[in-house]
Amino acid sequence: MNYNYKILKNLNTPNDIKKLTLNELNELAKEVRDFIIYTTSENGGHLASSLGAVELTIALLYCFDFKNDKIIWDVGHQTYAYKILTDRKNKFHTLRQFNGVSGFPKRKESIYDSFDTGHSSTSISAGMGMCVARDNNNENFNVISVIGDGAMTGGMAFEALNNLSELNSKMIVILNDNEMSISKSKGGLNKALLGLRSSSSYTESKKNLKKVLEKSNIGIFIKEILITLVNIIKEIFIREGMLFENLNINYVGPIDGHNIKNMISIFDKAKNNNEPILIHIKTLKGKGYKPAEENPTFYHGIEPFNVDTGEIKNKTNKKTYTNFFSESVLELSNKNIVAITAAMKDGVGLKFFAEKYPNKFYDVGICEQHAVTFAAGMATLNIIPIVCIYSSFLQRAFDQIIHDVCLQNLHVIFAIDRAGIVGADGETHQGLFDISFLRLIPNITIMAPKNGNELKQMINFSVNKISTPIAIRYPRGIAYDELNEFDSEIILGKSEILYDEGDISLFALGSMVKTAIEVRNKLKNMNIDSRIINARFAKPIDYFMIDTICKKSKIVLILEEGIKTGGIGEEIENYINTKNYDTKVILISIDDTFIPQGNVNELKTYFKIDSDSIVKKILEYN
Amino acid sequence: MNYNYKILKNLNTPNDIKKLTLNELNELAKEVRDFIIYTTSENGGHLASSLGAVELTIALLYCFDFKNDKIIWDVGHQTYAYKILTDRKNKFHTLRQFNGVSGFPKRKESIYDSFDTGHSSTSISAGMGMCVARDNNNENFNVISVIGDGAMTGGMAFEALNNLSELNSKMIVILNDNEMSISKSKGGLNKALLGLRSSSSYTESKKNLKKVLEKSNIGIFIKEILITLVNIIKEIFIREGMLFENLNINYVGPIDGHNIKNMISIFDKAKNNNEPILIHIKTLKGKGYKPAEENPTFYHGIEPFNVDTGEIKNKTNKKTYTNFFSESVLELSNKNIVAITAAMKDGVGLKFFAEKYPNKFYDVGICEQHAVTFAAGMATLNIIPIVCIYSSFLQRAFDQIIHDVCLQNLHVIFAIDRAGIVGADGETHQGLFDISFLRLIPNITIMAPKNGNELKQMINFSVNKISTPIAIRYPRGIAYDELNEFDSEIILGKSEILYDEGDISLFALGSMVKTAIEVRNKLKNMNIDSRIINARFAKPIDYFMIDTICKKSKIVLILEEGIKTGGIGEEIENYINTKNYDTKVILISIDDTFIPQGNVNELKTYFKIDSDSIVKKILEYN
Repeated sequence: MNYNYKILKNLNTPNDIKKLTLNELNELAKEVRDFIIYTTSENGGHLASSLGAVELTIALLYCFDFKNDKIIWDVGHQTYAYKILTDRKNKFHTLRQFNGVSGFPKRKESIYDSFDTGHSSTSISAGMGMCVARDNNNENFNVISVIGDGAMTGGMAFEALNNLSELNSKMIVILNDNEMSISKSKGGLNKALLGLRSSSSYTESKKNLKKVLEKSNIGIFIKEILITLVNIIKEIFIREGMLFENLNINYVGPIDGHNIKNMISIFDKAKNNNEPILIHIKTLKGKGYKPAEENPTFYHGIEPFNVDTGEIKNKTNKKTYTNFFSESVLELSNKNIVAITAAMKDGVGLKFFAEKYPNKFYDVGICEQHAVTFAAGMATLNIIPIVCIYSSFLQRAFDQIIHDVCLQNLHVIFAIDRAGIVGADGETHQGLFDISFLRLIPNITIMAPKNGNELKQMINFSVNKISTPIAIRYPRGIAYDELNEFDSEIILGKSEILYDEGDISLFALGSMVKTAIEVRNKLKNMNIDSRIINARFAKPIDYFMIDTICKKSKIVLILEEGIKTGGIGEEIENYINTKNYDTKVILISIDDTFIPQGNVNELKTYFKIDSDSIVKKILEYN
Repeated sequence: MNYNYKILKNLNTPNDIKKLTLNELNELAKEVRDFIIYTTSENGGHLASSLGAVELTIALLYCFDFKNDKIIWDVGHQTYAYKILTDRKNKFHTLRQFNGVSGFPKRKESIYDSFDTGHSSTSISAGMGMCVARDNNNENFNVISVIGDGAMTGGMAFEALNNLSELNSKMIVILNDNEMSISKSKGGLNKALLGLRSSSSYTESKKNLKKVLEKSNIGIFIKEILITLVNIIKEIFIREGMLFENLNINYVGPIDGHNIKNMISIFDKAKNNNEPILIHIKTLKGKGYKPAEENPTFYHGIEPFNVDTGEIKNKTNKKTYTNFFSESVLELSNKNIVAITAAMKDGVGLKFFAEKYPNKFYDVGICEQHAVTFAAGMATLNIIPIVCIYSSFLQRAFDQIIHDVCLQNLHVIFAIDRAGIVGADGETHQGLFDISFLRLIPNITIMAPKNGNELKQMINFSVNKISTPIAIRYPRGIAYDELNEFDSEIILGKSEILYDEGDISLFALGSMVKTAIEVRNKLKNMNIDSRIINARFAKPIDYFMIDTICKKSKIVLILEEGIKTGGIGEEIENYINTKNYDTKVILISIDDTFIPQGNVNELKTYFKIDSDSIVKKILEYN
């Protein structure tokens, strides 16, 4: 903390917040907000949601003691203020860096973090689990789940809400409603919340009516009718009232989520409630930083930026894989194409497609499961849906991919962005499992491109040359822009020879082709020749090529940016073994570990899937 | 069809139903019901739900034409009447048999089946996809999703409902509410539905009030108050009315789901609606067969039974793996144990536990995702949750296992019943993927017992000897009751030597130990010795044992009842290859295919994981 934050600098423990006056609390909010803006402008991060939750965080810390009380922040990217105000202000400058402060809650990082989050809609379930544990252990702390209106659209949040009415115990759910999650919130729930936002007029009407009745001097017959009517209203309102009351959950709100005083008053009352209660607060995403208020989607997860102008610092003209995908879907001429996203329109690159083809674009909200089966339904009737979901979030739709798409062998295209190591978002966001969890499913084809142009080729292939389930995985960030001279037609299950020399062969999938080329160049400098094959397909494997290179090679390396178990390496080594080739096989992949946050290159080196580590391995055997 | 069903026998196409009188329709219901009871009593199957949907099916077939209109039956086990009345009455006697009529909708089986189902809560998503396709293709058929109140508690059904209000197009959702799904429906939604069930009193009140107002001669002042009041009621009822109206979905009901006449009248009206509409019908699970009406849970999925007495035909005293699990959890003395099921209390064997420890038993409804994260929350506070879910349904919680349990390395125990080939329920229910989709996750331990007693040992081990995520997978049906003399203490990552002779080694996981013993006995008869190792752990693998047996063996077979990709076989072969042992490795597993319905032994033979096939393979190499 390099700045002269008058109040913040004097806070030694979170409980010091309880000693502040209301004015000081409001001043603290300004300081924290400034600190978040500054740090995020340096390190990048989830700015807009964290800005929206500053006052909420202060009010919570004022009312509760999170050494004992438990808080679960859904998704977890809104916790920068919480981190600063619990025990991490002095290392907050390391936000999102290797070995630094995580951008998400981490139990390993602080006793104030009760539950790790990163994916959406888990907080109510986890909180309920803690309540059960508390009651079983005869303890008496508070459990608070903070969930956004976007996360509330995720199915598992509903599963938990539905189950919440059976929890005969105290629990507080705070619905942090900013009328948009990452993109704009979708669906009927959002409309219902909009309804709640204006429901005070009804409450007023009821009050006025009561006054009129008390004053009026009317006959007993009429009075009875009126009483009956009021009772009917009451009954409807209680039994069939609002969405949450329909689910038998006590509801309070909506209240202003930037008014610390009001929140403190409500939270203090909620503490003494012995049943589950849902407190609905309204906040502004990006609050307090004009550019983020005006464009919260852009400032949701942001690269380092200039605080004064709001502009990204290291702007580049280099295209990302997402850009290539974005162009690719725009160029598709097939009239049966439909694109689906789960609340990531901009993130997956569907902004322009949505503008050009509003009737062929579906943002279903944070609902990966529904997205996939929705696509399966379309595919039964000759629509070709492209389902665009990040690798780590596609895990949520694993059963739907098996049960609704692959079992029926339907032509659904999965465009899997953020596959492989994603960097600063850390463990929950690394896309390391998709190759393995998809490969184990019968009927699916899996591809990965060597560069941006090949991604386009693959999208075209997946639309026009195949009629069964197919996935294309590609990394976060700048696309590899070399090897564009290699653009042979894509043929199902066929790999591509890039270089064909010597007795060391590298069979590389997707992003690892770039690494293989680096390896080749380094070996070249040592006068060692090597052969580079672009795998193109993770399933089916090109065994004709494997046979060919095994006959020519004393070492074959299989390179993939994913977990080793169930990856292409194990299958290929297995095949080579069955064929009794006299070839040494080396697998380059991630072996049975979660990968923490950090710079992508740094992490690749640390986990030994970088070119230097691979060269070293080759030299050991050569 | 062996019986003299007067009406049924004359129906040649589903459209013939449209020509029947109401009396004949009711008579047809009786015949179909009788046919279902008879066939299920012979073949086993999902009796209770299919009996509950007979009149609904007839009314739907009367009103719609499912050569053009599309129907998606959620879960799909209620479709026996539909199958009989579309084009499968003459082969209905092959229900659930190898190559016979499936117990679930199958597009491959009939043009009348629009979408394959088996797992819960998919129907609204799939139906919405079909609506989008229809509109895109400028067609004009009806799309109908039939979903039970239990399936409605599944998160993805809510995701779809929430998204349904954005579908500017016609679609019919029929909520088939029998007040219980497989076990009793859970949670706030169920309470809300119970509310709806009694809401006719409100409708009555409103009617009476209107009459009174029309007749009365009251002052203008009072009249205005009354009108305001009625408007408030109306406003509340429309804007914040019922659960579904809260989600902006048109709602009709509840109506009697056994009254064909009423349903026809409603369905005919619904056809002309150009927006999504939800029709709420009430049915009785097991309707028309007394034993099933009285105990719908027992007759949910039933073995062949005696129609007159309702008793199971081939009753056996042999214990199933589920029985062993059931005993095991009852015997646990640890006070921190909690058991969780997702609407399968009886199926997973938690009935007695729930009775003995009602405060430590949680049935969360058909909510596998919530179940797992709920458990993760508990595990952060020293509770030891045992999550009991069938293998194929655990796929639904894949992300939660990764993200909420394993990333935080929490002590959650997964008791995975129905792992491996389950038989007659077919493709959607085979438990073939769990070994692979769990093995790819860091931090988890995976076990499989050789027999019932070892399952008990493993449950004890998982509670008392480990404090990280652990899964135990075991098959459906009668437990293997041999090898009880082998009961050495379970040690993390250690396998168990059963027989130690000769130069052929079988390293077998769980259910495949029994098969390995059969192989050994057959080889013995040919005077060939063999070594049998009970793997015990699918993760971590006992590599000390692999080293040991490789040194002694010319052939090592790895046996697992699961998909090959990502299984233990690939990893072990990979290891053996790395070590340069001069050992032939043979993998016995299921290679990249879905497994259809049939008798378990029949299927094992067909897919060559039975002892005869394995002996044959050994002899080829020996």
